[in-house]
Amino acid sequence: MSRILVLLLLLTLGSFNSVKAQQVKQKDSLMIRSIYDMALLQGKSYEWLEYLSNEIGGRLSGSLEAERAVKYTEAELKALGLDKVWLQPVMVPKWTRGTKEYAYIETAPGISTTTNICALGGSVPTPAIGLKAEVIEVQGLDDLERYGREAIEGKIVFYNRPMQADLINTFEAYGGCVDQRYAGAMEAAKYGAVGIVVRSMNLRQDDYPHTGSMSYGDTPANQRIPACAISTNGADYLSSALKIKPDLKFYFKQNCKTYDDVQSYNVIGEITGSTYPDKYMVVGGHLDSWDLGDGSHDDGAGCVQSMEVLRLFKKLNYQPKHSIRVVLFMNEENGLRGGNKYAEEAKLKNEQHVFALESDAGGFTPRGFSFDMDQANMEQVASWKPLFKPYLIHYFEMGGSGADIGPLKEKGMVLAGLRPDSQRYFDHHHAENDTFDAVNKRELELGGAAMASLIYLFDTYGTKTEMTPVKN
Amino acid sequence: MSRILVLLLLLTLGSFNSVKAQQVKQKDSLMIRSIYDMALLQGKSYEWLEYLSNEIGGRLSGSLEAERAVKYTEAELKALGLDKVWLQPVMVPKWTRGTKEYAYIETAPGISTTTNICALGGSVPTPAIGLKAEVIEVQGLDDLERYGREAIEGKIVFYNRPMQADLINTFEAYGGCVDQRYAGAMEAAKYGAVGIVVRSMNLRQDDYPHTGSMSYGDTPANQRIPACAISTNGADYLSSALKIKPDLKFYFKQNCKTYDDVQSYNVIGEITGSTYPDKYMVVGGHLDSWDLGDGSHDDGAGCVQSMEVLRLFKKLNYQPKHSIRVVLFMNEENGLRGGNKYAEEAKLKNEQHVFALESDAGGFTPRGFSFDMDQANMEQVASWKPLFKPYLIHYFEMGGSGADIGPLKEKGMVLAGLRPDSQRYFDHHHAENDTFDAVNKRELELGGAAMASLIYLFDTYGTKTEMTPVKN
Repeated sequence: MSRILVLLLLLTLGSFNSVKAQQVKQKDSLMIRSIYDMALLQGKSYEWLEYLSNEIGGRLSGSLEAERAVKYTEAELKALGLDKVWLQPVMVPKWTRGTKEYAYIETAPGISTTTNICALGGSVPTPAIGLKAEVIEVQGLDDLERYGREAIEGKIVFYNRPMQADLINTFEAYGGCVDQRYAGAMEAAKYGAVGIVVRSMNLRQDDYPHTGSMSYGDTPANQRIPACAISTNGADYLSSALKIKPDLKFYFKQNCKTYDDVQSYNVIGEITGSTYPDKYMVVGGHLDSWDLGDGSHDDGAGCVQSMEVLRLFKKLNYQPKHSIRVVLFMNEENGLRGGNKYAEEAKLKNEQHVFALESDAGGFTPRGFSFDMDQANMEQVASWKPLFKPYLIHYFEMGGSGADIGPLKEKGMVLAGLRPDSQRYFDHHHAENDTFDAVNKRELELGGAAMASLIYLFDTYGTKTEMTPVKN
Repeated sequence: MSRILVLLLLLTLGSFNSVKAQQVKQKDSLMIRSIYDMALLQGKSYEWLEYLSNEIGGRLSGSLEAERAVKYTEAELKALGLDKVWLQPVMVPKWTRGTKEYAYIETAPGISTTTNICALGGSVPTPAIGLKAEVIEVQGLDDLERYGREAIEGKIVFYNRPMQADLINTFEAYGGCVDQRYAGAMEAAKYGAVGIVVRSMNLRQDDYPHTGSMSYGDTPANQRIPACAISTNGADYLSSALKIKPDLKFYFKQNCKTYDDVQSYNVIGEITGSTYPDKYMVVGGHLDSWDLGDGSHDDGAGCVQSMEVLRLFKKLNYQPKHSIRVVLFMNEENGLRGGNKYAEEAKLKNEQHVFALESDAGGFTPRGFSFDMDQANMEQVASWKPLFKPYLIHYFEMGGSGADIGPLKEKGMVLAGLRPDSQRYFDHHHAENDTFDAVNKRELELGGAAMASLIYLFDTYGTKTEMTPVKN
């Protein structure tokens, strides 16, 4: 064959391939458009969230609300006509807040100002008459050693390092100070502190205290000290009062209690794959929440968006090649028992999970996804960027995925996390104002549509590490 | 010289240039980081907005509030130590709402349901006793011809085409139905309608009616019919009531009035350029607002962000090469007199404007900018994308800029508009709930920082069409 003929043949093949690539791309583009149309015009996630938030409310692990949420979401998944819906039993911790906490700042005997606090999740209570002591303000755990036992013993340690406002990603700012909340009590106890108060992890100045998980590590039970969060306005007030009156006293009373573990469940629904029924793709959020608000953003949003992904596939008559599971994990907030349990059983049953996506960063306008996967998969995702551009989904970066799907991680697997706009998330996180009215219907729906689109693409083309050719 | 020597020389020069380019880029990157740090840690825009919103309130052209806003922002700009601050006189229309509107749907004599309405801006009042008539529901202006005079005469035309929820950019959805509000009354009058009710331009279901500008065109004064907006919930209620009871009656009473034009002002501040004092770059928003809310998003946000750009430059000791002007335009909402006046005077004085940026799409998380300019400038902007990536500013597309800067447009000029996330904008637009609490401090500040960064880059490198080499 002459070289010219070979060249012509190659050109023809090339253009044939490019036409085929074009058609595939057009098919994907149309499917994604259908997903968005269905989500925005006939979405169900907002209605589900309204029920979870307003009819059920805060769903702390082990609470009646958490169990009602299990029953409700199980029934709703069943109504979707999935191939399977079941509950996966998991034992969870049970901690209750009890009656509302009470606190004041006493600048002189009889002269005091009440301030808003809440117990940190897992804290021990104060004595029934409350706890009153002088306060030492610190900027973090490192300060304890610097001040030493002499300065700390018998006092309440006030951790007041704020979230860094100059960080664009507010989760980074959260990560930069949450050690105060998580380890503040166990560390302060080592220096003889009698209690701790932590500045709320909130970038906004307001009056809401924000709870969240904490740990006593291996501190013996009789040496555990009560821990509470104070609102950002309260923290600023306390700090400025301490400058004027360093020997002021802080009083707080909290009535929380830890019980024995109780039975709970992950809620799971599945559309069984047509080509690879034994390969699993998971989409999920966590069904439990803190108790102060109604857990609309954290993480009611992630749950209903995940349910919506499967509903959209059913409504659009999309039959996935892989088995797609929605998993509503129990107990992310104070134990991660649900996430651990799901991964444990998957391993026991030798279920091959190739992909998992979690939405646990609020129901705000989605900006994209962060991924925990290898470079080959990242390149495949990068090739999909043009498909997402019309929907203003632009963020595709390596990074974390989600706490509940983390335990599933295996070499070669794709883990992903939805990344919504993060600016307002910590205004509501773990606080009384994490409520339904703070969620915008369209923003929530756009998140579910972005998730369904990503899963559609991974289902269609497979992950790069499945090692099995996926037919188109 | 041998070819190898030439090659080596070229490579050396190339790497020298690339080192230089690297240094320039690093300088820009550091400057932008400083802009963001200053905006997020020591920003002033939120404080200004608090005053405009809560101390002054809605700033309808010709109102006392608008004049107070002129005086306040003039004083605040003076306090920044700019090179010049002045007021540019402009005559503006004066329309007042009068006492609150009242409306009900009467399904049978004596059986009625009140519903929330507001007069459209510029509407004539109803008779003092109100107006009651049967209703004909239409989906848009085109329907008028289809139904014809026989069906319309003596009735109130109810325009009920909703914003399209499947459009990702909500401004596009707005553009797709605002003709009903703007031209609905003048068109319906041609068919003998006695009044119009327009579904609010709002993607959310709620009870707020949204006002906005309308025109009677050249309809003679005695043929002008009153026009109001009804909330989205009200519109749905009215529509379903009409299905059951097509001869129901709608009653409304509104007390608005148009006065003679009154004196007002654009507020202008300038940092005079060091290298090109006679070339102007404008950044602005509009100081007037509708009267129902306090105009926090529309467009208090754009005003304080624009003021913040100049404040950031002063605080960072950045001496711009071009003269940078902040212009707070008066009367964007119902006349555009301020924008027209500024452009007119610029032309009279032969001031060369090379760049203008408007922020008038709400104080939400900025996503990027849309541009009205030539391809050479677009390529320059594209080369800056990496500088914006750390701040999650990703949208750089051709498109509109801003209503107030539109009249400045000249060949070769760069016009730009800040493009914040648009999902919640129309929840608040022109309604009672466009209030300060709906603005998040960080989101507002991120917008101002993005604007300052873009202006810094255009000031440093010049627009591609200035035709004058800009020194570095």
